[in-house]
Amino acid sequence: MSNDVNERLIKLEMDVLAANDKVAAENRKEFVEDKILALNLVSSPGSGKTTLLCKTIEEIKNRIPLAVIEGDQQTINDAERIRATGAPAIQINTGENCHLEAQMIKDACAKLHPEDNSILFIENVGNLVCPASFDLGEECKVVVLSVTEGEDKPLKYPYMFSASKVMILTKIDLLPYLNFDVEKCKEYAKRVNPEIEIFEVSSTTGEGMESWINWLDNKRKNLVG
Amino acid sequence: MSNDVNERLIKLEMDVLAANDKVAAENRKEFVEDKILALNLVSSPGSGKTTLLCKTIEEIKNRIPLAVIEGDQQTINDAERIRATGAPAIQINTGENCHLEAQMIKDACAKLHPEDNSILFIENVGNLVCPASFDLGEECKVVVLSVTEGEDKPLKYPYMFSASKVMILTKIDLLPYLNFDVEKCKEYAKRVNPEIEIFEVSSTTGEGMESWINWLDNKRKNLVG
Repeated sequence: MSNDVNERLIKLEMDVLAANDKVAAENRKEFVEDKILALNLVSSPGSGKTTLLCKTIEEIKNRIPLAVIEGDQQTINDAERIRATGAPAIQINTGENCHLEAQMIKDACAKLHPEDNSILFIENVGNLVCPASFDLGEECKVVVLSVTEGEDKPLKYPYMFSASKVMILTKIDLLPYLNFDVEKCKEYAKRVNPEIEIFEVSSTTGEGMESWINWLDNKRKNLVG
Repeated sequence: MSNDVNERLIKLEMDVLAANDKVAAENRKEFVEDKILALNLVSSPGSGKTTLLCKTIEEIKNRIPLAVIEGDQQTINDAERIRATGAPAIQINTGENCHLEAQMIKDACAKLHPEDNSILFIENVGNLVCPASFDLGEECKVVVLSVTEGEDKPLKYPYMFSASKVMILTKIDLLPYLNFDVEKCKEYAKRVNPEIEIFEVSSTTGEGMESWINWLDNKRKNLVG
């Protein structure tokens, strides 16, 4: 690429991120004021984010107010799956774009009106790269990795794993049929992010869901008091 | 985002793609002149591209000259796995970048020197979104989708599936343990791309590899004569 285009690219990327960060800070301020626990779920396509969300919602919907923002390039399938659980959900279609941005969350919240003291789950576009750079104003990013993807992913996509406070290993019911070394995967994740908290779950069998739900409860308790 | 930043973004994206297309056209010209079949393998992280490549190389390396370019944000693991098969391979680390660009392929070829009449496999960064927009000069894109990712992916990420001439469904040995509807997935892929050719393979058991290898042989025959 020519130097001119390259220089403009770097300058503009900084401007785009700065503009995004400004709106993200406004979102965060609102979430904190309204005691809304906003979580940004990120992963590859097909890691089981929506299934995990549906299962999580079933477990907590009777005692915690919830709302969901779904991001996908196309289709409204995921929002429909979420709505079937009874939780309010809004779908954002990003078209050719590869990630959600803070302004999209601001616009979606203006329609969705998440309740005070609620949990707001934001399911990002399936992409283990680009959403790492975009703050949405969330409390933290939660990276979801399915055991069918291979244990090397934290090393190959380190930006996402270091940008996340939590990693959820999904589809652990499939472990007997795979060559996936859980301990090695956890070690790799800790290598790029020593502070990362790790949960191992199966949305199919329910195994491991309790620890993840406990984490949500504790996080919310710290926020709501 | 402000209108100014947005306008600059659209203008610059067009410049970046135009600059990339120019280099891609130069790559394509060289590949055609040297009768090199260049294939751009794209997918989510963890779909099994490298394993499929290793298996493919084992099958054909004794009769077809080969070379491999590996793209990842970090690590040189994949190039090492390829080299273990005996095929020459070069690793490109894209850092924070989410896709390979034509100039990277040009630079890699200057070091790798793929032989005349060879097959050049380019394994893109695991990302079902961004690599769709970047022509590398390849003969075609081959999208790899593992059956653990869910059959809805062609509808949710339509740009990649319409940019590809071939879809390879991998990990079909896991079908007995999953709720994955192969026919529905193929129907979705054809809906976004009626011309797409589809193969179903297991790199673990070898099932379906023959049809994929036949396709490679035919493609190469058309090129080399």
